[in-house]
Amino acid sequence: MKNRIKTFGEWLDKEQIDGAIITSPDHVFYFTGFYSDPHERLMAIILFPKEEPFLILPQMETESARKAGYSYSIVGYLDTENPWDALEREMKKRARKVERMAIEKSHMNVERYEEIQNRFPGVSIVGAEKKLQEMRVIKDEEELRRMEKAGELADYAIEVGVQAIREGITELELVAIVEYELKKKGVEKMSFDTTILFGDNAANPHGSPGTRKLQRGEFVLFDLGVIYEGYCSDITRTVAFGEAKEKHVKVYNTVLKAQEAALEASRPGITCQELDQIARQIITEAGYGQYFTHRLGHGLGISIHEYPSVTGTNPLPLKKGMVFTIEPGIYIPGEIGVRIEDDVYITETGAKTLTKYPKELKIIQ
Amino acid sequence: MKNRIKTFGEWLDKEQIDGAIITSPDHVFYFTGFYSDPHERLMAIILFPKEEPFLILPQMETESARKAGYSYSIVGYLDTENPWDALEREMKKRARKVERMAIEKSHMNVERYEEIQNRFPGVSIVGAEKKLQEMRVIKDEEELRRMEKAGELADYAIEVGVQAIREGITELELVAIVEYELKKKGVEKMSFDTTILFGDNAANPHGSPGTRKLQRGEFVLFDLGVIYEGYCSDITRTVAFGEAKEKHVKVYNTVLKAQEAALEASRPGITCQELDQIARQIITEAGYGQYFTHRLGHGLGISIHEYPSVTGTNPLPLKKGMVFTIEPGIYIPGEIGVRIEDDVYITETGAKTLTKYPKELKIIQ
Repeated sequence: MKNRIKTFGEWLDKEQIDGAIITSPDHVFYFTGFYSDPHERLMAIILFPKEEPFLILPQMETESARKAGYSYSIVGYLDTENPWDALEREMKKRARKVERMAIEKSHMNVERYEEIQNRFPGVSIVGAEKKLQEMRVIKDEEELRRMEKAGELADYAIEVGVQAIREGITELELVAIVEYELKKKGVEKMSFDTTILFGDNAANPHGSPGTRKLQRGEFVLFDLGVIYEGYCSDITRTVAFGEAKEKHVKVYNTVLKAQEAALEASRPGITCQELDQIARQIITEAGYGQYFTHRLGHGLGISIHEYPSVTGTNPLPLKKGMVFTIEPGIYIPGEIGVRIEDDVYITETGAKTLTKYPKELKIIQ
Repeated sequence: MKNRIKTFGEWLDKEQIDGAIITSPDHVFYFTGFYSDPHERLMAIILFPKEEPFLILPQMETESARKAGYSYSIVGYLDTENPWDALEREMKKRARKVERMAIEKSHMNVERYEEIQNRFPGVSIVGAEKKLQEMRVIKDEEELRRMEKAGELADYAIEVGVQAIREGITELELVAIVEYELKKKGVEKMSFDTTILFGDNAANPHGSPGTRKLQRGEFVLFDLGVIYEGYCSDITRTVAFGEAKEKHVKVYNTVLKAQEAALEASRPGITCQELDQIARQIITEAGYGQYFTHRLGHGLGISIHEYPSVTGTNPLPLKKGMVFTIEPGIYIPGEIGVRIEDDVYITETGAKTLTKYPKELKIIQ
């Protein structure tokens, strides 16, 4: 954390920025080791080029922030106080002047933006995201360790889910079984709402589980992930129940081929858009191009969706230490949805997956 | 939905606002019946004084929006397209001029705000929240029905949790059991992370469950809620396991007295701050004032925390149809945390609770 605060401070110094108000829970965690989502209440870490930072948050959260290991100043406030008074006071105390300030433009809302402009009249405001992205996109050893563990737990979740498949079970019951077993293993939080979909329900890539009962001949799509010590995993597997029609097997194997080709191509130097194109071309050539309606993948780390976006229009070259998902899919409305997704870490010479559950088509009896 | 769109359009007309870009998932749901959180992707309903609205969202979500019953125009976009191009085009097609625009200042981020300013140069931007709050704060019959059902399911969750209490069980295992049983009942989503805390772990009002094992003589705090057809419940109950020390019983009964006094006083005309003060005075007089570190409650509906905030500084008088929580607590660091929370609906002459699980101190054997 200290290194991160230092690196960011050096950037502020270089850019002649007098201070940064960092408000997104993920970035507050990145700098403090403390995660909290205080909803509409203000939580921010205020960072400076040279002076020590301070953390401002609801009084009742101060103890948890300390327990999480954050060691600089904390300013707690009560619900009856206006936290901006304290923020302004403490910020002006530490910075000689506040003429140029950094914020997260993709997170801070307009209400707070106007509050800043009223309290620091004439201040020039710049975005901090690019620097934060650049810092976060390369995962260090400790981050990799946590993400490997998060990946292992995601594999375990798929295993539990696949074993629980039986005729007549509902999507929500399967979700319940998977999450129950994970909580018993000490998993505190899933990285997003566990998604288990049957048959044509999976043809909507953002569908949600309901009380639909599983029938023989349907595919089951699992999309889930856990948070382990602040870091996310994200896996998708699709299996068949009872039997698989030939045309569905063809869809499955096309997705698998696209996923493995993109995985195989992943190494430092290749660009995000090239990866997307490699997978998309295979799916298009097989005649399903119109049914692959989303990007190939997304960066992964503290956030479930973070920089970089693995789309057909992103020219960013991969670097060692990046982690992202590779998750092509084919969704034929009213019929079937297949997606296969792994979390990938870029090594010096290639890539390794953090999720390892087998990918050849399973037909569950 | 049509009535809401009409009422909001009349307000736009009266205020001479040419259009509104509404982006928060909760408000998009309020106007469309369709709920989705597309993360960093743009989703917005664009509303006008007289013209019909349109909904802009990722292409892959368009089918779900239709299924949810939304019947006006939908503009879908692919990940490779810039959704702001379509938004600008469609908005300019419908509005004769866009000189004054409404947004949710507490939700829209600065990046999007700047995008709007670039595409509609010189546009004057006003906040839509006050009107939206005013509309949403009074729940109609259908909203009440859903919230009653959400309350029933929260009661059931407490019942399941209390029955599962046994020596040595962990906080996370209890969470797992509760959520498992709810999913079996068809509950798709909790309204926030289910919080079950033992002993002094509950002394942090925003603590989170872990692998701590339950011991005799500890209190167990349950704070949870479900989402039923888009509407939230939120309940807290605290019970003792095995035995209860006299000093802890005193803490419990103080919280109960404060909670019931505020509940008893709830009726049209009394203000939020008066309610907070009624509860706070009882806790303060019993000598625990410093340990009641948060507001009395918060509005509840589509959002788990919404308008109004029930604090000691909010002069808003209650009205028939409002729904909010009453949840005093006492948190003695290193020792104990007790909170009791109900969801309250204001009737013509008083209040009724939507959560009904008994509140006298239970000592589970």
